[in-house]
Amino acid sequence: MSLESYMNQIGQQARAASRLLAKASTQQKNMALFAMAKALEDARPRLIEKNQKDMENGRAKGLDPALLDRLLLDDARIDGMIEGLKQVASLPDPIGEISGMVFLPSGIQRGQMRVPLGVIGIIYESRPNVTIDAASLCLKSGNATILRGGSEAFYSNQAIAEAVTKGVVLSGLPEHAVQVLNTTDREAVGKLITMPEFVDVIVPRGGKGLIERVSKDARVPVIKHLDGNCHVYIDDEADLEKAFLIAMNAKTRRYGVCNAMESLLIHSAVAESILPKLVAAFQEKEVALVGCDSARGISALIGVATEEDWYTEYLAPKLSIKIVVNMEEAIAHINQYGSHHTDAIVSQNYSKTRAFMTEVDSSSVMVNASTSFADGFEYGFGAEIGISTDKIHARGPVGLLGLTSQKYIVLGDGHTRDN
Amino acid sequence: MSLESYMNQIGQQARAASRLLAKASTQQKNMALFAMAKALEDARPRLIEKNQKDMENGRAKGLDPALLDRLLLDDARIDGMIEGLKQVASLPDPIGEISGMVFLPSGIQRGQMRVPLGVIGIIYESRPNVTIDAASLCLKSGNATILRGGSEAFYSNQAIAEAVTKGVVLSGLPEHAVQVLNTTDREAVGKLITMPEFVDVIVPRGGKGLIERVSKDARVPVIKHLDGNCHVYIDDEADLEKAFLIAMNAKTRRYGVCNAMESLLIHSAVAESILPKLVAAFQEKEVALVGCDSARGISALIGVATEEDWYTEYLAPKLSIKIVVNMEEAIAHINQYGSHHTDAIVSQNYSKTRAFMTEVDSSSVMVNASTSFADGFEYGFGAEIGISTDKIHARGPVGLLGLTSQKYIVLGDGHTRDN
Repeated sequence: MSLESYMNQIGQQARAASRLLAKASTQQKNMALFAMAKALEDARPRLIEKNQKDMENGRAKGLDPALLDRLLLDDARIDGMIEGLKQVASLPDPIGEISGMVFLPSGIQRGQMRVPLGVIGIIYESRPNVTIDAASLCLKSGNATILRGGSEAFYSNQAIAEAVTKGVVLSGLPEHAVQVLNTTDREAVGKLITMPEFVDVIVPRGGKGLIERVSKDARVPVIKHLDGNCHVYIDDEADLEKAFLIAMNAKTRRYGVCNAMESLLIHSAVAESILPKLVAAFQEKEVALVGCDSARGISALIGVATEEDWYTEYLAPKLSIKIVVNMEEAIAHINQYGSHHTDAIVSQNYSKTRAFMTEVDSSSVMVNASTSFADGFEYGFGAEIGISTDKIHARGPVGLLGLTSQKYIVLGDGHTRDN
Repeated sequence: MSLESYMNQIGQQARAASRLLAKASTQQKNMALFAMAKALEDARPRLIEKNQKDMENGRAKGLDPALLDRLLLDDARIDGMIEGLKQVASLPDPIGEISGMVFLPSGIQRGQMRVPLGVIGIIYESRPNVTIDAASLCLKSGNATILRGGSEAFYSNQAIAEAVTKGVVLSGLPEHAVQVLNTTDREAVGKLITMPEFVDVIVPRGGKGLIERVSKDARVPVIKHLDGNCHVYIDDEADLEKAFLIAMNAKTRRYGVCNAMESLLIHSAVAESILPKLVAAFQEKEVALVGCDSARGISALIGVATEEDWYTEYLAPKLSIKIVVNMEEAIAHINQYGSHHTDAIVSQNYSKTRAFMTEVDSSSVMVNASTSFADGFEYGFGAEIGISTDKIHARGPVGLLGLTSQKYIVLGDGHTRDN
């Protein structure tokens, strides 16, 4: 079969499955998630065997250790996937919720019903557990899924797919509810993102290169997150103890995450009081520091920040520091150089926190809290498919609700429109 | 100045204006709308003079009478624009609304704040009043607007733009809150839809050709509506009097509108009772009828429907008719051939109406009501920028809310994340 025919078949099967999933009951979907968990448990030796094949191929190809680590499936990670399925089963089902039903002057009642998006295409890199993460969230929200994993994890993903389908079928849901592409042909991605007749939305999960490529060529909407160039602004009216803890936590909790602080803005009136302490603490953590001239005037341990630095998401133990003369300058800097992901103010001043919240154009704006909280679990969604920096549809951490849509429903009793 | 530089300048100005508009108070925005109304009133003779220039050029170019009619600005239409501005001023301001603030286990509070999208690009065809419609809705929702009207209405749009800017500036809002492109170069559209750094969303308003072109090439999200291939399904348990009135209203209220019925589905058990009456009534209205073999078996006045007919939005006094054996067939037909715009069931059976609402995958699903109600005004939004058949972001009639986004806000008091 040609790739074109194969992808069309996958697409048609997904569309047909999505019609059945859209009307599946919560109980059916939860049963399928538990059956998937059971099937993974049963397939444990096979999963490990197939994963070893991927690991061997990876080593032979000379993949770097970080990539190999992400590729690995061991007992603990399989436990994690099984636990994840059970957690998703325990989440409330968003589908079918009717809201805002009001009577209108014509006599009709109108409101909205929450419904699945339909078919979701997920494109991801080497971590095989994403197969289960993504499939479970899509299934719980009543969507059919087409998954395309990285070629390095091909055998692992195929084995996971078999277990998933076993669980799905056992529970009476459509066989094609979750499909994992069985090809590593790059053209498959190109086709997947350009068949709006079969795919309603694409979620790319991986590095910036992948996301940019997908966004550029996609003919269907993409739920994506590009950069997380997050800021903390320490105001002259900040509680400096809180400011210290928040800045340290935002930068050093983890370096490789999108909600880590990459740029620290400090009001000039408090810079001399707080910056030396922060520099010392960052030094201890081996965080490299660059900054503006004013910052460098306060500490000789700060290197020169270039214009490029203000735009940069380091994802590493590195931080840029800028001294600003007031909050307005901080807001203007964030809106210009930031990536509209997550930005925080530390201040005890009511009016300033109020203005900062309104004026900073980011998916999460925080007051006196670490940017690290920008996360689906921390926000109480129970799960997360990613964090969106788009303004359209889902913005910020995306949980089950982000995989749904709302359609209007109208109830009449023979109503017709006059003019 | 090159087109490239011109468009970049427009984009930068819009982005800067959007920052100020985002924090404008409701009162400021309403004052601007009233000042725009006053400026239009003052510019009335100039508007009519400039419009006559467009009309003359249009006649010279041989534009068809329907197009010329849409192009015309007379006193009544200027009154309409002025009235529209006042109506938008009277709508509640959606911006700033905070919802869903909850305390989470970590101690932070998280919720969402409704904010403008930022900069909205509107591309429309010859009707100059769209300039005011679109500008007023975008301004009320705190967005900066870049408008690109059809070249036929060039002089009219420039004159309207002058009046708009006069009103905006008088009220203290940024001069570039509403910009109308002063070029008819087609490349300007190409640039407008591919500058995500300056434009957050594009709304094309016009024929299908325009919308398809824009969607294909856009690098920013598009709020669009393609076809309105709407269905009414008359169930065997329908109240046939209601069914008759709804079917007639859905088809004949207006022919050229997207919420008009284009295809009528009738349960076979009631086809013989209701179809002849409908055929007679449609004949009287000079609606051309095509249908399936079963329909043609009941009335010889029905022509042959081809496969193509089931997909077709006639936007004309023409209707396709299909007899189905049950509701499931009707739903499957609608989901396959429809355009996911608006579809209705007429039935007194509770279980069937419940299933129809859940299973029909359209932006509006109606029970015992005419598809004609799919409209922002009828839904109580007070205004409408269009009807979206996308599932992402805005779905169905799009009012002010569809021109907004929600960002997360987090309130802490020195909170940091542990793990």
